[in-house]
Amino acid sequence: MKNLGYYNGNYGPLEEMMIPMNDRASYFGDGVYDATYSKNHKIYNLDDHIDRFFNSAALLRIEIPHTKEEMKTLLCDMVNKVDDGEQFVYWQVTRGTGIRNHAFPDCKANVWITLKPAKVKDTYKKIKLITLEDTRFLHCNIKTLNLIPSVMAAQKTEEAGCDESVLHRGDRVTECAHSNVHIIKDGKFITPPTDNLILPGIARKNLIKKSMELGIPVEKRPFTLAELFDADEIIVSSSGSFCLAASEIDGKPTGGKAPELLKKLQDALVADFEKETAR
Amino acid sequence: MKNLGYYNGNYGPLEEMMIPMNDRASYFGDGVYDATYSKNHKIYNLDDHIDRFFNSAALLRIEIPHTKEEMKTLLCDMVNKVDDGEQFVYWQVTRGTGIRNHAFPDCKANVWITLKPAKVKDTYKKIKLITLEDTRFLHCNIKTLNLIPSVMAAQKTEEAGCDESVLHRGDRVTECAHSNVHIIKDGKFITPPTDNLILPGIARKNLIKKSMELGIPVEKRPFTLAELFDADEIIVSSSGSFCLAASEIDGKPTGGKAPELLKKLQDALVADFEKETAR
Repeated sequence: MKNLGYYNGNYGPLEEMMIPMNDRASYFGDGVYDATYSKNHKIYNLDDHIDRFFNSAALLRIEIPHTKEEMKTLLCDMVNKVDDGEQFVYWQVTRGTGIRNHAFPDCKANVWITLKPAKVKDTYKKIKLITLEDTRFLHCNIKTLNLIPSVMAAQKTEEAGCDESVLHRGDRVTECAHSNVHIIKDGKFITPPTDNLILPGIARKNLIKKSMELGIPVEKRPFTLAELFDADEIIVSSSGSFCLAASEIDGKPTGGKAPELLKKLQDALVADFEKETAR
Repeated sequence: MKNLGYYNGNYGPLEEMMIPMNDRASYFGDGVYDATYSKNHKIYNLDDHIDRFFNSAALLRIEIPHTKEEMKTLLCDMVNKVDDGEQFVYWQVTRGTGIRNHAFPDCKANVWITLKPAKVKDTYKKIKLITLEDTRFLHCNIKTLNLIPSVMAAQKTEEAGCDESVLHRGDRVTECAHSNVHIIKDGKFITPPTDNLILPGIARKNLIKKSMELGIPVEKRPFTLAELFDADEIIVSSSGSFCLAASEIDGKPTGGKAPELLKKLQDALVADFEKETAR
């Protein structure tokens, strides 16, 4: 099977799945999501992703119609229906179905799942970045379906022949269009704090944990565009890219000044994924 | 018929309409909309709404698969299928249908229309307001489907027993959850300028036009929360509310200090709607 979709108990190929026009995704993007990868039918970091999913929903007062355990079972059952290669496992909850009206409707939330074959990015391949002003809303800690600014940034990135865009609010670097961003400078791992401008990334959490295990000092603080351009390494992380380092930003060379430290982190993160998803 | 939905040429009762799961509304809220009212099968201010719709789409590089004339014909045909009472006429375009991926897919945009019986608000009934911090993105001039902050504001408004929330970024008043906001002070009509924090409202345009016709000086400039609280009248406008005046804000009495000027404006706007939608 190439891919698989699920909506409130019904499932089938993604291209054939239909949903009600009045689902609140349609008019308001009124929902939250989470996503990770599976391999050998094992979903990587599932507990962390489920915790964040329930937290996102709670922040928007969306009541997920399943317990955490039920949601995990549902996702594992779905993953068992597809082949055992690497899969992108995505799920979302929308507030419900009702005639368009801004205030909350009196109805049950809708649960969506999509699976598609996709490999995690090659951790050792250098990437190219552009910088863009961060024009998103002030709830970036919630993983919502209101993603137009990320869509526009992703398109600009692709048209620039790059892999990700680093967003900044004035001088402060926040995160990327769909990743967190960090720097290595003078042997330290520096990452923005998780306030309302930053998604609390699971890959970020893993990076911090591995840094500490490897004895690399971790600083959680905002950093500036000047610090980004002056970094020894710029690191981008997301659930599909554990620790990507940049070789170019805005057309200028960057990174390559802490290759050993970088490789230690990358090796540790790849090993963790392989271990957790082993047969 | 109670209501009517349309999606890419198919139509039926809204509750029965289904759309593809992979429409980009589902994952990104990747679309724009517009809306107005009809009466006697005449759609009010249709040219203005169509112009704004095409402008919103162009700002997000969404290509509407119809000309303006075709879009107007489509809406008029739809309105002729329902009864001749007041109808809320809503339409949107989404970027297309494709497996979830942030950057633009190579596909045609989807056209959606919904009609439901709904009356424009009683222009002469006073409303109650609350104030809330404006946490939306920096593209409020585009009428997008990324509406979670407006949904949350509308729910807070309803729970406060009020009719609308006035949003502010720090001290600057921007607009309401789904309306523009203006003040009357010392005989002048004061309205925020249409920058990226404000939707260029058609009802706002009508208010400015009628003010000028009535010899009321118009100031287009940002105003502060202090000016809002000190206004002679606070006016809220949207396509379904031509010129509503507030009697209460954050639980305190407001307005009622320019009743004659207010009534002149309201009478002129109601007369315009009645004239344009007469049989």
